[in-house]
Amino acid sequence: MTEPATTIVFLLFPGITQLDFTAPAQALCRIPGATLVGAAARLDPIATDSGFAILPTHDFASAPPADILCVPGGHGVVDALGDAATIDFIARQAASATWVTSVCTGAFLLGRAGLLAGKRATTHWGYTHLLPLVGATHQAERIVEDGPVVTSGGVTSGLDFALTLIARIKGDAAAQAIQLAIEYDPAPPFVGGHPDRTPAAITEGLKTRVYNAAAARMEAALKA
Amino acid sequence: MTEPATTIVFLLFPGITQLDFTAPAQALCRIPGATLVGAAARLDPIATDSGFAILPTHDFASAPPADILCVPGGHGVVDALGDAATIDFIARQAASATWVTSVCTGAFLLGRAGLLAGKRATTHWGYTHLLPLVGATHQAERIVEDGPVVTSGGVTSGLDFALTLIARIKGDAAAQAIQLAIEYDPAPPFVGGHPDRTPAAITEGLKTRVYNAAAARMEAALKA
Repeated sequence: MTEPATTIVFLLFPGITQLDFTAPAQALCRIPGATLVGAAARLDPIATDSGFAILPTHDFASAPPADILCVPGGHGVVDALGDAATIDFIARQAASATWVTSVCTGAFLLGRAGLLAGKRATTHWGYTHLLPLVGATHQAERIVEDGPVVTSGGVTSGLDFALTLIARIKGDAAAQAIQLAIEYDPAPPFVGGHPDRTPAAITEGLKTRVYNAAAARMEAALKA
Repeated sequence: MTEPATTIVFLLFPGITQLDFTAPAQALCRIPGATLVGAAARLDPIATDSGFAILPTHDFASAPPADILCVPGGHGVVDALGDAATIDFIARQAASATWVTSVCTGAFLLGRAGLLAGKRATTHWGYTHLLPLVGATHQAERIVEDGPVVTSGGVTSGLDFALTLIARIKGDAAAQAIQLAIEYDPAPPFVGGHPDRTPAAITEGLKTRVYNAAAARMEAALKA
């Protein structure tokens, strides 16, 4: 039995949070018949936030049309919001994709491309208050589906998103097999990972050190 | 306050399961003062198992000595077991590292370098029965510490391993902040991800399609 082809296109850009891309990629690439595309403005190596670089497989001009379009986030989103070629690529790919998705602050790139207007959506917890700036309403869930648009929370939510999407497309058994293959039986060392379940002092400290300023930069870019 | 430098060296090799590297890298690189090194035999792009390539930061000769050495797994382990330069690099780095660690089938590369003899250890669930071939005893935990040697289970266990190690080195608050920054509040779509908790038919199907043959290849390489 030949599996139908599934083309999964990830947007790549400098300053990407690499796990926003690599975690869902690990699961989605195991869909039988899947081809993974990492599309960037140019074919040069992409510097990630983690001290190493990844290579795009295609540039924007050569990337095939996506069945699943996935836009990751990261501190590089602030610059990418102002890059017309990037936003045009997202809009063009989304027009023919079956699923239009984001991980973390990638939601704001979907939003800049006009894809979240009137939609329920989510993003990294440090930025959810900014979703109305792209016409979206925040829904307080780790994964938010609104028709063909699926947005997910910060960074590691991308793996839960990918397995959920695989179940939707290929059925529960396919998703369960992939979850088992990657031994995704999580055991985080602490209860937490979300402000609702993390000690307030940890959350406040992180906001003071990182996210208040980062959200202000994002807000300025969204209003520019 | 200047943070002490922490050099984290990941082994990279063709056919790596990229999430074995990218998930712990995302957490470990957020240790204040951390430098991430991706070391490979050559500086050429490394083809991963997921349809894209990553760039090493160093070759074996130029990689600095690790404080934390981490060896990922993947189907490429079978070939890497027979590569003297790779095994020599692991042994040389381990000799001066504070922590010697693996994710998934990277455990067998540690083992080939003589680092698991007499140790309790773990690896991907499909290969745990092979640990005695490198002198190790399987301990049925997602993360196994035996002195300075820390091994973890399949693929996604690398994130739990990294956060656990950060807590050990930098304290609980540092690890909790990183867990929150990457919004690691997992919500897998299914109970499972380990044979103990996955429906037997899913496990047996995956063994038949993938892991029986893969474990046989690993066994042959370990006995060569």
